[in-house]
Amino acid sequence: MVLHGPNLNLLGKREPGIYGHDTLELVNERLQAWAEEQGCELRIVQSNHEGVLVDTIQQAPDWAQGIVINAGALTHYSYALRDALAGVALPTVEVHLSNIHAREAFRHESVIAPVCVGQICGLEWYGYILALQALQRQVNSGV
Amino acid sequence: MVLHGPNLNLLGKREPGIYGHDTLELVNERLQAWAEEQGCELRIVQSNHEGVLVDTIQQAPDWAQGIVINAGALTHYSYALRDALAGVALPTVEVHLSNIHAREAFRHESVIAPVCVGQICGLEWYGYILALQALQRQVNSGV
Amino acid sequence: MVLHGPNLNLLGKREPGIYGHDTLELVNERLQAWAEEQGCELRIVQSNHEGVLVDTIQQAPDWAQGIVINAGALTHYSYALRDALAGVALPTVEVHLSNIHAREAFRHESVIAPVCVGQICGLEWYGYILALQALQRQVNSGV
Amino acid sequence: MVLHGPNLNLLGKREPGIYGHDTLELVNERLQAWAEEQGCELRIVQSNHEGVLVDTIQQAPDWAQGIVINAGALTHYSYALRDALAGVALPTVEVHLSNIHAREAFRHESVIAPVCVGQICGLEWYGYILALQALQRQVNSGV
Amino acid sequence: MVLHGPNLNLLGKREPGIYGHDTLELVNERLQAWAEEQGCELRIVQSNHEGVLVDTIQQAPDWAQGIVINAGALTHYSYALRDALAGVALPTVEVHLSNIHAREAFRHESVIAPVCVGQICGLEWYGYILALQALQRQVNSGV
Amino acid sequence: MVLHGPNLNLLGKREPGIYGHDTLELVNERLQAWAEEQGCELRIVQSNHEGVLVDTIQQAPDWAQGIVINAGALTHYSYALRDALAGVALPTVEVHLSNIHAREAFRHESVIAPVCVGQICGLEWYGYILALQALQRQVNSGV
Amino acid sequence: MVLHGPNLNLLGKREPGIYGHDTLELVNERLQAWAEEQGCELRIVQSNHEGVLVDTIQQAPDWAQGIVINAGALTHYSYALRDALAGVALPTVEVHLSNIHAREAFRHESVIAPVCVGQICGLEWYGYILALQALQRQVNSGV
Amino acid sequence: MVLHGPNLNLLGKREPGIYGHDTLELVNERLQAWAEEQGCELRIVQSNHEGVLVDTIQQAPDWAQGIVINAGALTHYSYALRDALAGVALPTVEVHLSNIHAREAFRHESVIAPVCVGQICGLEWYGYILALQALQRQVNSGV
Amino acid sequence: MVLHGPNLNLLGKREPGIYGHDTLELVNERLQAWAEEQGCELRIVQSNHEGVLVDTIQQAPDWAQGIVINAGALTHYSYALRDALAGVALPTVEVHLSNIHAREAFRHESVIAPVCVGQICGLEWYGYILALQALQRQVNSGV
Amino acid sequence: MVLHGPNLNLLGKREPGIYGHDTLELVNERLQAWAEEQGCELRIVQSNHEGVLVDTIQQAPDWAQGIVINAGALTHYSYALRDALAGVALPTVEVHLSNIHAREAFRHESVIAPVCVGQICGLEWYGYILALQALQRQVNSGV
Amino acid sequence: MVLHGPNLNLLGKREPGIYGHDTLELVNERLQAWAEEQGCELRIVQSNHEGVLVDTIQQAPDWAQGIVINAGALTHYSYALRDALAGVALPTVEVHLSNIHAREAFRHESVIAPVCVGQICGLEWYGYILALQALQRQVNSGV
Amino acid sequence: MVLHGPNLNLLGKREPGIYGHDTLELVNERLQAWAEEQGCELRIVQSNHEGVLVDTIQQAPDWAQGIVINAGALTHYSYALRDALAGVALPTVEVHLSNIHAREAFRHESVIAPVCVGQICGLEWYGYILALQALQRQVNSGV
Repeated sequence: MVLHGPNLNLLGKREPGIYGHDTLELVNERLQAWAEEQGCELRIVQSNHEGVLVDTIQQAPDWAQGIVINAGALTHYSYALRDALAGVALPTVEVHLSNIHAREAFRHESVIAPVCVGQICGLEWYGYILALQALQRQVNSGV
Repeated sequence: MVLHGPNLNLLGKREPGIYGHDTLELVNERLQAWAEEQGCELRIVQSNHEGVLVDTIQQAPDWAQGIVINAGALTHYSYALRDALAGVALPTVEVHLSNIHAREAFRHESVIAPVCVGQICGLEWYGYILALQALQRQVNSGV
Repeated sequence: MVLHGPNLNLLGKREPGIYGHDTLELVNERLQAWAEEQGCELRIVQSNHEGVLVDTIQQAPDWAQGIVINAGALTHYSYALRDALAGVALPTVEVHLSNIHAREAFRHESVIAPVCVGQICGLEWYGYILALQALQRQVNSGV
Repeated sequence: MVLHGPNLNLLGKREPGIYGHDTLELVNERLQAWAEEQGCELRIVQSNHEGVLVDTIQQAPDWAQGIVINAGALTHYSYALRDALAGVALPTVEVHLSNIHAREAFRHESVIAPVCVGQICGLEWYGYILALQALQRQVNSGV
Repeated sequence: MVLHGPNLNLLGKREPGIYGHDTLELVNERLQAWAEEQGCELRIVQSNHEGVLVDTIQQAPDWAQGIVINAGALTHYSYALRDALAGVALPTVEVHLSNIHAREAFRHESVIAPVCVGQICGLEWYGYILALQALQRQVNSGV
Repeated sequence: MVLHGPNLNLLGKREPGIYGHDTLELVNERLQAWAEEQGCELRIVQSNHEGVLVDTIQQAPDWAQGIVINAGALTHYSYALRDALAGVALPTVEVHLSNIHAREAFRHESVIAPVCVGQICGLEWYGYILALQALQRQVNSGV
Repeated sequence: MVLHGPNLNLLGKREPGIYGHDTLELVNERLQAWAEEQGCELRIVQSNHEGVLVDTIQQAPDWAQGIVINAGALTHYSYALRDALAGVALPTVEVHLSNIHAREAFRHESVIAPVCVGQICGLEWYGYILALQALQRQVNSGV
Repeated sequence: MVLHGPNLNLLGKREPGIYGHDTLELVNERLQAWAEEQGCELRIVQSNHEGVLVDTIQQAPDWAQGIVINAGALTHYSYALRDALAGVALPTVEVHLSNIHAREAFRHESVIAPVCVGQICGLEWYGYILALQALQRQVNSGV
Repeated sequence: MVLHGPNLNLLGKREPGIYGHDTLELVNERLQAWAEEQGCELRIVQSNHEGVLVDTIQQAPDWAQGIVINAGALTHYSYALRDALAGVALPTVEVHLSNIHAREAFRHESVIAPVCVGQICGLEWYGYILALQALQRQVNSGV
Repeated sequence: MVLHGPNLNLLGKREPGIYGHDTLELVNERLQAWAEEQGCELRIVQSNHEGVLVDTIQQAPDWAQGIVINAGALTHYSYALRDALAGVALPTVEVHLSNIHAREAFRHESVIAPVCVGQICGLEWYGYILALQALQRQVNSGV
Repeated sequence: MVLHGPNLNLLGKREPGIYGHDTLELVNERLQAWAEEQGCELRIVQSNHEGVLVDTIQQAPDWAQGIVINAGALTHYSYALRDALAGVALPTVEVHLSNIHAREAFRHESVIAPVCVGQICGLEWYGYILALQALQRQVNSGV
Repeated sequence: MVLHGPNLNLLGKREPGIYGHDTLELVNERLQAWAEEQGCELRIVQSNHEGVLVDTIQQAPDWAQGIVINAGALTHYSYALRDALAGVALPTVEVHLSNIHAREAFRHESVIAPVCVGQICGLEWYGYILALQALQRQVNSGV
């Protein structure tokens, strides 16, 4: 599963100097293409609602083997997302399009990082692909 | 009224080392049983959505005499919940299943505590019963 | 567009010592009256849901020329709102009914202020009128 | 065992706006009445001396099955009390008459909380009864 | 009364990227024009001396009904100005040409804000007009 | 009543560079001489035990009209003393022999100052005389 | 010499709940009466200008034997006053009418305290008399 | 180029609970295998000396097109490494074997992150592969 | 002299994972055995009362040549102990059984360390022997 | 232009241990001698008034090509001086007689440093000469 | 093994007021004499290079049974040393000649302390002997 | 002696917007030219290794009369450099090419400043010349 948080649906329209010119639709297509290539199913959800993201994470164990999440601005204050991820205990990789450690101070801290397996940031949409690779490898190796 | 915040619907499934093995359904049944015994009506709401919790609190004065709230992770950042509780001005008791003062630093501070009558934590599901007792006593004594 | 955040629907009922006795309906009527007088259209949205506010901001560029926002308690932690406002890049004026700089410490900082044109606070419902004037002037002068 | 810390002997005389009008004698009688009703023995100690409280806690394991403690102002700096409670390892519930989280900043932190089972605050003398109930339940269930 | 603090006499010459190209003389003319239109008298004082500003505020109650103040850099450390404003107890609106909440950290805090009715910032010279409107309304309504 | 806290019995022996060469006995004699001159009774207590100081303060209302207290090092952490002073509500003046604001950082803050009428420091033993004068005046004027 | 800082000329008019009803003129008369009684000359200066206070302190060694200073709000940020007092090296006693340690946090720290002999606060105008007594004693004893 | 910082030569021997059982030699072989597969040359340097790492980075522009760096503990304080990376201006990806955001507080901040393109952490040795992929893609796309 | 602070009488019973299985009696016997071997007299005092510890320190100069102190939890807040040690000016070595710098944050700071000659921690009961050796050497060398 | 801030007129009289024995007159003579030698005109202003310093800086662009400023204690809090320097945009070098980075913590931060070209401190009156050299060079090279 | 960090080779020459008059050679001879007496081999390394110290620690497990380390100034920032010590997992005792807890604030925190068995400070060169004794005892007892 | 720290060998190549276009070779030539003119010998060392810089400083007293040091990024964390400079006790002037007080927060604090005579920053390579002048004058005047 890939989860996109608030404002990621503006991708390609919003502050292209920071986030690039590719739209979310284009990014999702690339992810689906990669998944198809790998022979694995990928469900992608975007929401601006913290509650919807929590609901979605809670239902994930029924069908998903791992989560790739870019929680957008919620990354920095949503302890509810953190508790949801800790609760379902699926391997999760956090992704950020931009290098959050090189931006405003409030973006340096991720409250969900401590319950994730790892974090990839600053590598644009390609970071999602890398995160999926990492998850796939972890699931396959049965760790 | 009893309000359960985000991820409390995972109770019994999520991190039983911290939260115990009883499901939310079981806890709610016990609360209803206690309410019946006391001859008072109890409405219980769980939501992962901050907005739904705020809406529910705003409507409470129409029928409730007090609120027992376990806001989950929202406890630590939702000033919107705080303003809602302050706005309706019903006597409110805050409950936490675990002893939040003995966990991660971010769980030590409750932003809703200053607008509640009191706080009960660390006493598992039984904390809800105690909170209901306290509210019942306060309502009966007309303070 | 005028956006009201969480608990502003309680206006006139909630803590009148701080927020005054006028209801939100009354305030909105005054704003519509002013808009009519100026010959401009005004849409007003209130929501207790951060996600709904983000959705609404994202759709604003289709029809609005500016935003007046009172984000209520979300002002102090919703980086998602901030990113939404930064994303749509409409001129935005932040309004607060009370003087947030003279209240609790947590209300002194607005996380959305850095992406707004300006801030007006402490001038009650009249602050909305002033904010609309400022926006109107900015839009007219084509800055 | 119930332990009252410094200045609790002033109860009913000191700052009744915060602590209520009931004297400590009256509160103790109610606790003894409750204990009698439950058929369990209750010893109550009050002291203004940190050392006496530490001594008393150290001797508790000889005869007590649990501790209810309101350490008064020592709550906020007496690491010696904390170490004593951790040392005897009896289940302990911390009680405060007022809602310490809604008062001065220095009262928000309890240095003994991390070694207690839980905390009850803001529910006046009735908080002691609830704490005793919780302890009784824990002792009976043999957890 | 309108009070301009240190360096506002450089307006139009100093850092036009931040403060715009209008000189203080031009701004003052606009304010006088507005006042004339409203039929009210306006006295405008600019000084680079904290002491002169304090003296001027102290004498204001003899003839003024309200104060609009842009204290310039003194905003951020002059507790003497704050005490003067608190001492004379005239309704005061704080104005800043730029959005101080979007600039250097030291400009985020106004030590005079807690003794003012409200604050308007980021709306350039027009902010003075809005502040005067707000004061006029408050004086007229006799609040 | 005059209360001397921990280590003040070492006066004249301990660190004379900071505290001077006069012993506590000598200081007490001077205070008694002054009291005799004024025709008022003075009881002086010194203790190294926080609990004894709290006990003494609690009994003061039976016979004293005011308290002069130099709590020694307890000044900086004994919230129990603070609560005792707040509880008995006698006018209290805090005295320090040395200028605590010019010494180590931990001595800059007095946790009992907020519940005292005032503070006198840095004026050696003469500070006690001034404190007694101030109390006498306050008691006489019936404020 | 007695120095009064900014806004002390408002005494008796400004916030009487905090500063009392006596005007500065009345206070000064009392000080002069006391000085006459003691046969010593007293010069009293009040200014709202930091620079004037610094100038006055610099000239003091020509004729004064000590300084009593109530720097008003400058107490909390005027390092220039501090350097002036340190430069002239006259014995100085700091006075505050109200108990600054029991008011807003910014009033707890005095930047001039470390270069003064001592501090007296919270004892209203009588604190000036006590400060003068202390200085007189120090000068007489030739310390 | 791949740079390993202090103590990474202990890999497989040191704290395997955190860093896994693979030795650095094994990891390097895998990276070389990957590089060979991609037809690109890879030079790998490990050093416990900050100075050697700085020297190596400075010489990199002569032959390398990008840097993958795991600076070990130097990540958290070596501003010299940061300046070296900023000085050579090659695209750099920071890698950490463990999830540094889930460990001790001092490991949460990377002083070199702000001058890197991105960061990958928590994905064990596979993180190096992903970093190389990201660099390769960036170099190929000529961004 | 050897001073044991609060809860050290629980040694061997309390949290053996941290403090080991030897009781205080056993430790004291070993210290006495060592003293006998060295031909020097050793007095050992344990108390849970800060006041008793202060009293004991004040009387030490009459007969002791040095102090070994393990102040238990008082280490971290008892400025009264610190002042007592500074007042008697005997060479003092601070001992802790566990490595306080590797435990909870509040145990990292010792408020008595700055007035001691040195500190030994983490070496269990043997640390007392080492401290006595160090004192003996210092006393013998007449430094 | 050379600007001397508050208390620099005390030079040679005030705390010679820190500031040396040369008077300001002597220092100024040396600067004038140097200027004469270089064939450039030098105006020197000293004031204890922040406002006078701001006024002087504002008028400097009419005739000066650069500013050497030692703002004395104002260095550490006068944002008004900072804004004045930023406003006139002349090359400015900050000078301090003593090494401010080796003194009290409050002297470590200069609020005017960020708008100056550079800072010279700790080199006594000779620092002014060096600052003038640096300015002369910069003006001559037309940078 | 005994490790001396940066600048310890200056011993006896550098700041004898703090570090004493004995040179490092003399200290090392004493340690070797003690080792000989105990029949154990001792290797002593001094380096001003963090990298050399890390290398040396990494090779220690081949032949050493424990480490005594005085890391000099590296104590306060070298997380690389910390990781090396944690990696080799030999029992390590930290030594400091002076009482680091009584010096500048930056010397109060040791970043290597949490991975050491214990710390001895303030006991001059004799602290090394005590540390060796402690290690010897630990190795012999096979703990 | 002139010491250049890490990355200064990149001068002229690295970030010319901040550090200018002159290479280190060119700067060194200018310094040598100046030295020759003054008839004094100058040795210049650059190293990226903290240890080499410490070694070099330790050997300086054999032949040097003063040190000019630009420690590069080590300025902000190398307490080892600080101790080396304090140990050799040669007059030292700290130089920075850029104005470190106007850059990132971590560059505002120099840990070596408190042991230097003074600091010169922001004046590019010319700052070295000024520092040499200052040292020469100090050495000549025998202070």
